[in-house]
Amino acid sequence: MADKMVFSFGGGKARGDATMKALLGGKGANLAEMTNLGIPVPPGFTITTECCAYASKHKKWPKGLDQKVKKALAKLEQQMNRKLGAATDPLLVSVRSGAAVSMPGMMDTVLNLGLNDKAVRGLAAKTNNPRFAWDSYRRFVMMFGNVVCGVAHDKFEHLMDELKRERGAQKDTDLDAAALEELTQRFLKMFRKETGEAFPQDPWQQLTRSIDAVFASWDNDRAVTYRRLNDIRGLLGTAVNVQAMVFGNMGPTSGTGVCFTRNPSTGENLFYGEFLVDAQGEDVVAGIRTPRPIAELANEMPKVYEQLVAYKDALEQHYTDMQDIEFTVQDGRLYILQTRSGKRTAKAAVRIAVEMVAEKCISKDTAILRVQPASLDQLLHPDFDPKAEKKVIAKGLPASPGAASGRIYFDADETEEANARGEKVILVRHETSPEDIGGMHAARGILTARGGMTSHAAVVARGMGKCCVAGCEKLEIDYATKTLKAGDTVLKQGDWLSLNGSTGEVILGQVPTVDPQLSDEFGTLMKWADARRRLKVRTNADTPKDCNVARRFGAEGIGLCRTEHMFFEGDRIIAVREMILASTLEARKKALAKLLPYQREDFVGIFKEMDGLPCTIRLLDPPLHEFLPLNDENQAEMAKVMGVSVDVVKKKVAELHEMNPMLGHRGCRLGITYPEIYEMQVRAIVEAAAACAKKGTKVVPEIMHPLIGTARELSILRDLTERVIGEVRKETGYRGDILIGTMIEVPRAALTAAEIAKHADFFSFGTNDLTQMTFGFSRDDTGALLSAYVDQNILEVDPFRTVDARGVGRLMRFAVDEGRETKKKLKCGVCGEHGGDPKSVAFCDEIGLDYVSCSPYRVPIARLAAAQAAIHASNKKADKKKSKKRGK
Amino acid sequence: MADKMVFSFGGGKARGDATMKALLGGKGANLAEMTNLGIPVPPGFTITTECCAYASKHKKWPKGLDQKVKKALAKLEQQMNRKLGAATDPLLVSVRSGAAVSMPGMMDTVLNLGLNDKAVRGLAAKTNNPRFAWDSYRRFVMMFGNVVCGVAHDKFEHLMDELKRERGAQKDTDLDAAALEELTQRFLKMFRKETGEAFPQDPWQQLTRSIDAVFASWDNDRAVTYRRLNDIRGLLGTAVNVQAMVFGNMGPTSGTGVCFTRNPSTGENLFYGEFLVDAQGEDVVAGIRTPRPIAELANEMPKVYEQLVAYKDALEQHYTDMQDIEFTVQDGRLYILQTRSGKRTAKAAVRIAVEMVAEKCISKDTAILRVQPASLDQLLHPDFDPKAEKKVIAKGLPASPGAASGRIYFDADETEEANARGEKVILVRHETSPEDIGGMHAARGILTARGGMTSHAAVVARGMGKCCVAGCEKLEIDYATKTLKAGDTVLKQGDWLSLNGSTGEVILGQVPTVDPQLSDEFGTLMKWADARRRLKVRTNADTPKDCNVARRFGAEGIGLCRTEHMFFEGDRIIAVREMILASTLEARKKALAKLLPYQREDFVGIFKEMDGLPCTIRLLDPPLHEFLPLNDENQAEMAKVMGVSVDVVKKKVAELHEMNPMLGHRGCRLGITYPEIYEMQVRAIVEAAAACAKKGTKVVPEIMHPLIGTARELSILRDLTERVIGEVRKETGYRGDILIGTMIEVPRAALTAAEIAKHADFFSFGTNDLTQMTFGFSRDDTGALLSAYVDQNILEVDPFRTVDARGVGRLMRFAVDEGRETKKKLKCGVCGEHGGDPKSVAFCDEIGLDYVSCSPYRVPIARLAAAQAAIHASNKKADKKKSKKRGK
Repeated sequence: MADKMVFSFGGGKARGDATMKALLGGKGANLAEMTNLGIPVPPGFTITTECCAYASKHKKWPKGLDQKVKKALAKLEQQMNRKLGAATDPLLVSVRSGAAVSMPGMMDTVLNLGLNDKAVRGLAAKTNNPRFAWDSYRRFVMMFGNVVCGVAHDKFEHLMDELKRERGAQKDTDLDAAALEELTQRFLKMFRKETGEAFPQDPWQQLTRSIDAVFASWDNDRAVTYRRLNDIRGLLGTAVNVQAMVFGNMGPTSGTGVCFTRNPSTGENLFYGEFLVDAQGEDVVAGIRTPRPIAELANEMPKVYEQLVAYKDALEQHYTDMQDIEFTVQDGRLYILQTRSGKRTAKAAVRIAVEMVAEKCISKDTAILRVQPASLDQLLHPDFDPKAEKKVIAKGLPASPGAASGRIYFDADETEEANARGEKVILVRHETSPEDIGGMHAARGILTARGGMTSHAAVVARGMGKCCVAGCEKLEIDYATKTLKAGDTVLKQGDWLSLNGSTGEVILGQVPTVDPQLSDEFGTLMKWADARRRLKVRTNADTPKDCNVARRFGAEGIGLCRTEHMFFEGDRIIAVREMILASTLEARKKALAKLLPYQREDFVGIFKEMDGLPCTIRLLDPPLHEFLPLNDENQAEMAKVMGVSVDVVKKKVAELHEMNPMLGHRGCRLGITYPEIYEMQVRAIVEAAAACAKKGTKVVPEIMHPLIGTARELSILRDLTERVIGEVRKETGYRGDILIGTMIEVPRAALTAAEIAKHADFFSFGTNDLTQMTFGFSRDDTGALLSAYVDQNILEVDPFRTVDARGVGRLMRFAVDEGRETKKKLKCGVCGEHGGDPKSVAFCDEIGLDYVSCSPYRVPIARLAAAQAAIHASNKKADKKKSKKRGK
Repeated sequence: MADKMVFSFGGGKARGDATMKALLGGKGANLAEMTNLGIPVPPGFTITTECCAYASKHKKWPKGLDQKVKKALAKLEQQMNRKLGAATDPLLVSVRSGAAVSMPGMMDTVLNLGLNDKAVRGLAAKTNNPRFAWDSYRRFVMMFGNVVCGVAHDKFEHLMDELKRERGAQKDTDLDAAALEELTQRFLKMFRKETGEAFPQDPWQQLTRSIDAVFASWDNDRAVTYRRLNDIRGLLGTAVNVQAMVFGNMGPTSGTGVCFTRNPSTGENLFYGEFLVDAQGEDVVAGIRTPRPIAELANEMPKVYEQLVAYKDALEQHYTDMQDIEFTVQDGRLYILQTRSGKRTAKAAVRIAVEMVAEKCISKDTAILRVQPASLDQLLHPDFDPKAEKKVIAKGLPASPGAASGRIYFDADETEEANARGEKVILVRHETSPEDIGGMHAARGILTARGGMTSHAAVVARGMGKCCVAGCEKLEIDYATKTLKAGDTVLKQGDWLSLNGSTGEVILGQVPTVDPQLSDEFGTLMKWADARRRLKVRTNADTPKDCNVARRFGAEGIGLCRTEHMFFEGDRIIAVREMILASTLEARKKALAKLLPYQREDFVGIFKEMDGLPCTIRLLDPPLHEFLPLNDENQAEMAKVMGVSVDVVKKKVAELHEMNPMLGHRGCRLGITYPEIYEMQVRAIVEAAAACAKKGTKVVPEIMHPLIGTARELSILRDLTERVIGEVRKETGYRGDILIGTMIEVPRAALTAAEIAKHADFFSFGTNDLTQMTFGFSRDDTGALLSAYVDQNILEVDPFRTVDARGVGRLMRFAVDEGRETKKKLKCGVCGEHGGDPKSVAFCDEIGLDYVSCSPYRVPIARLAAAQAAIHASNKKADKKKSKKRGK
């Protein structure tokens, strides 16, 4: 470690470089890189993240670090020809944090270090600017007191305000040198009182204590929370950058600014930024003075501007990415203080990536890797006008992206009625159930107080491409009084509310939205991604409308068409309920015969829309009780419609009640016990295929059996399916291929995949249920628990968002590998919600799946994620080859 | 196959032997064996099971079989010096089924084959007994008509009754030769009418068609059902035995009988059996005449008796097992028609096995293998007097063995009250819940209409060693009118009912019981078993009383002590509910402090009882809502006791409600979110251990965390546990070892066992939950489905009864192997109900577990099963060695 503790930079030479971010932090690595490039960077040195990790663990510095720092400091003093704390012309340094991943503002910084009671006078004399010197000293006392010694910031502010009152000063800048000297004395006095020690005059003590404070700031609450929220893991700590101070506040030939090499909001290739004359970096950030557009610097300081343009071009070309640059001009001399890849919107990311390929700056692969797949969501859903003012009254889970404003209703039926009246409606429920499906269709957005990212509301909403905020636990919903309470805010039915499904924000009143426009660059990037990926991308779609959206977004087929959602629409639910109430096989078949034409029409609509693409249709999955009403009123209504007594309905509801419906009588278990249901569904599929084929549509149906846990279940149901297919073929003359396969969503199915594969043409992983059963987590019941588990780091990620590679993923690997041992060409895919999660897509690529399937609005995300996975895979392969070659 | 189609026996020589049961069936193999032993067996030949399998598959005989049969028949005719169907002195044969495993009465038999219109007169002349000849012919026509041609049996009976009426005959034997000739003519006429063909006169046709009928009877409904119910699998088919007829009905020097070499009911070593003079085998079975005790044969036919005794001794010694022998005496000459290992009661099995070792007839290993572990149940629970008459009104699942009579009550509280009044009570419920625990304690037996072998009622009842019949779906229970309906029988509260928990029978009224007496032989056998087994056997026990029973039955520790059952007793439930209602940590800790002394006393009681043996105590597992009342009345009562409003109770109940409690907020998830609960429990355990240790009890506590799914959960809870242990050690000076381990009951735990093992001293497989989650079967909801699955052969066995080796067992193997890779000495056991299932015990032995744990009454079963597993394992090893040696 001794060799890797301190890295100096300056005078055109540095030991570090941009590849060493893990050790030097992003800032340190880039300062070294720029130094080597000949960019004017104030010299200094970087203390490594390893030192921080050591100090954090052992509560002391690693052995030898103090000598290394002394040596680096001596070198810096020599380069600057000044000494830290010297009575004349003293060297001042900044001490800044800088981790491998940018965590803006989360950790601590100390500026103007090296000043003391003597040095401040030396600085005043040398710069001939006592006001500047005292202002610097009082800032240093304030920062050191706050950051190193924990003296509250407002204690200093208070003294400053007091002095300003005494002197009748309006602004800080109204205070002259004498006033600032007085302020510094008061700061020093207060510091002694608060800390019980005199302000340290020894610059070495100032420096070491500041370094310690920066080390410690790695573990402060803000930083820990930020890392958790941004999923930043596996870093050692922060590096510490000690750098000679340069001053932008030394008069009209000085200044400071921040600039981007391109527009970070739109991506346009235009130099973009702001600057202030006679100011320090803090002033730009603090917003005390309004900065001026960077273009004006050309008039103000033409030479500096010219240099800056040259440097920013050099930096962008060097890093081959849009840069976010901080600079300071001290007395006409330009210094670059920091460069890093600039944060940008999804829109900008896409445009910059595509344009940089045109500029031959980066490869297509690099362009593909430059865009965060999940960020594409921003481009696909209508969004609130970012300029609008918002009053956020609560925050839930961002369950389904999009933005919606509407009047709130608490009941699915009333939602439908209001929608029919032409109102814009937000449906508000404790949680939704399949009975609410009509209301969900009618609503512009859905808000629930319970349930997680994969709750009924969330899944259905995403399927519909509809905005949803779920699990907003702060809300108190009272169905009786039809009110919604969030803190002090109470809303009644009909009041306006807005939901941001991408952030989880619940906003009072109406917020205007802007429509998304997909740019040409977007199209180009997606074309490149499609060419690059190995994984196919399908969609989960239950209606022709879903299919249409998904095809527009590039879906290559349906991976999951749930047949049960169709059961709720219109009059069908009556036939479904007749079927469930039937006490004889005859009666059940009669009711099923009524459903057959509906189902057939559904499939005709879907097949037409998906012309030429494969459609995987899952047979009935939910337990039958989901189709029956639970409350007295609805039961009475059902009894009336059915022409039976309420008791009959109640008895059936009681009979079908299950303690754990997730693990109950559903899926293929229904197909085994009521073969006539699956027979009807298979018949509907094949009749629809025959009808479409006759009209020239190319139909590629795939019939999927849910919840298979044993090979024998699938073998029985495959026989049933083939028999019905054969019958309909005879009746219609239909000759097209029909695949028969199974969901793998019960752990036992994965464990016995070798046997199950004998009866399956394809496997489709139902990762939602597989995750529920593998973890023993009911997604309906453990929303709050899962958040707590992620917060406490018990789980690295919510396994319903990203596939749990170690547990659930291990089962998936078994199934793929062992299934293909039985049947080499076994087609394997994913149809759980994970199909739209970029990390999960990468995992699916890694284990060799053929496709992923996700809700229509996530299709572009999956396409891009799949391309990135393919690129990472080939890079990995190339690396292996290289290291093998080297090994020879 | 050509060489393996027909095996002749006779004249002291046979090609087959007793080892060839798979091919010749049990009967055929033993006929061959006896022939080779020089035992007088009527000669004949056996057609193999492979021929049956071929015929069943191809609907025709394998090529060459007819030639082989012809040749064997010719040989038989030569040996007997008679010809089949000859006009003078014809040969008659029997055609009998006989599979590898005895399936008494399930398949078909044709006797007296070879008779026709001419041969009957030849037989009459030769025997000088026309009545015998015509009686034989009419029996043959009847059997052939029924078995081969499917003419209903009662059509023949009807003609017989008619003739008897015409002739004024009371009994069959009142019909003389002429009458029987007339009857035969009527049979033949009716046969022609029913079948459209004349009765076949060609003896070859008679024979081949009879052989076909016996082949076909392998697949008749009765036989298929019998195999399913008796778990008989993997057999090819039935063999067919064609054997010369001998007749016990040829006068006073003839006779027939059935005997056992020892008493099959008690095991006593006394010749046991029955015989009839001048009768055929059928007559003994049909019960037309009362047979006489075998001892009387010594007077009746002293020479025959002497021979019979010699043969039975020879056969028992030869087979080294108690034999069930059929014999016929024809005109003073003794023939043995069949020998097989005799069925016996558990009591007899134990006695015979132990005595045969004393007689140096078999080894101890063989003795251990001779007793069905599950049959020991019969010896442990009081049982209904087998002599009593019973009216069975319904049949459910034999959920917990034992016999109980009592008055029925439908409510747990009323059950307790009735019990307090001194009534014997049977608790009848749709299904039980933890709220019923008091009533279950008070009841002598529990009857439920829903739920399977591992339902709440079943598990708790077995734990209590209490009789339970579960899932008796035929019952209609009406809580409102307090009535129970089973078919036409309606019972009111207070009516008497009896339950047989070993058979699932629900019996009207009271049935007297007899108490079990454990014999010395039982003790001896168990001692041998203990010496032979590798697996330790522990018990699942929650109370000192359970512990006491289990120790008496030989338990070597507690594998699972559930702490939550204690929560329901007496006043504790109030403190538990206070804890749940608590809205602050403080309030919760206060309520927990009230529970602490109770829990400590529980553990003191258990530790004392288990002095010197390890006790694995599982921390709180069920979701908190299980402790709250669900109905209005009980909620009101709770509110009153708690001093809160009903709304508070209702709100908490609603808040804690879960859609799928099985996969919800329970187990270690409670320990993570409410650490104070586990802290209290750990403290209670360690304080109890300290108190006991001070009084000289040897305490070996093991603390077990339930529902672990991630290594991090266990690491957090291990820290908590160690911290509290450390605190109590400091306070009490207790120094004894305390192991900390985990249940493996979530699939993910098994999949990530390598990591979890880092934090565990032991793994205990919770095979109930592991099976639920691996299959996605809620045991509360899928009772009926599972029965259907077993019936339809989708599942070979109920996975809640016997560990599913392919799926669940695969996870167990992963966990054991990978856990021990991390920690070589990791102790592994099973604490699910499977620990008491012999097949599962064998599986546990195979995968290298250290112990199994089961309910107290199953401990002897597990001990014996473990010994059998060890014997099978060493036999397998020896076989491997042998075949390796041979290989060299």
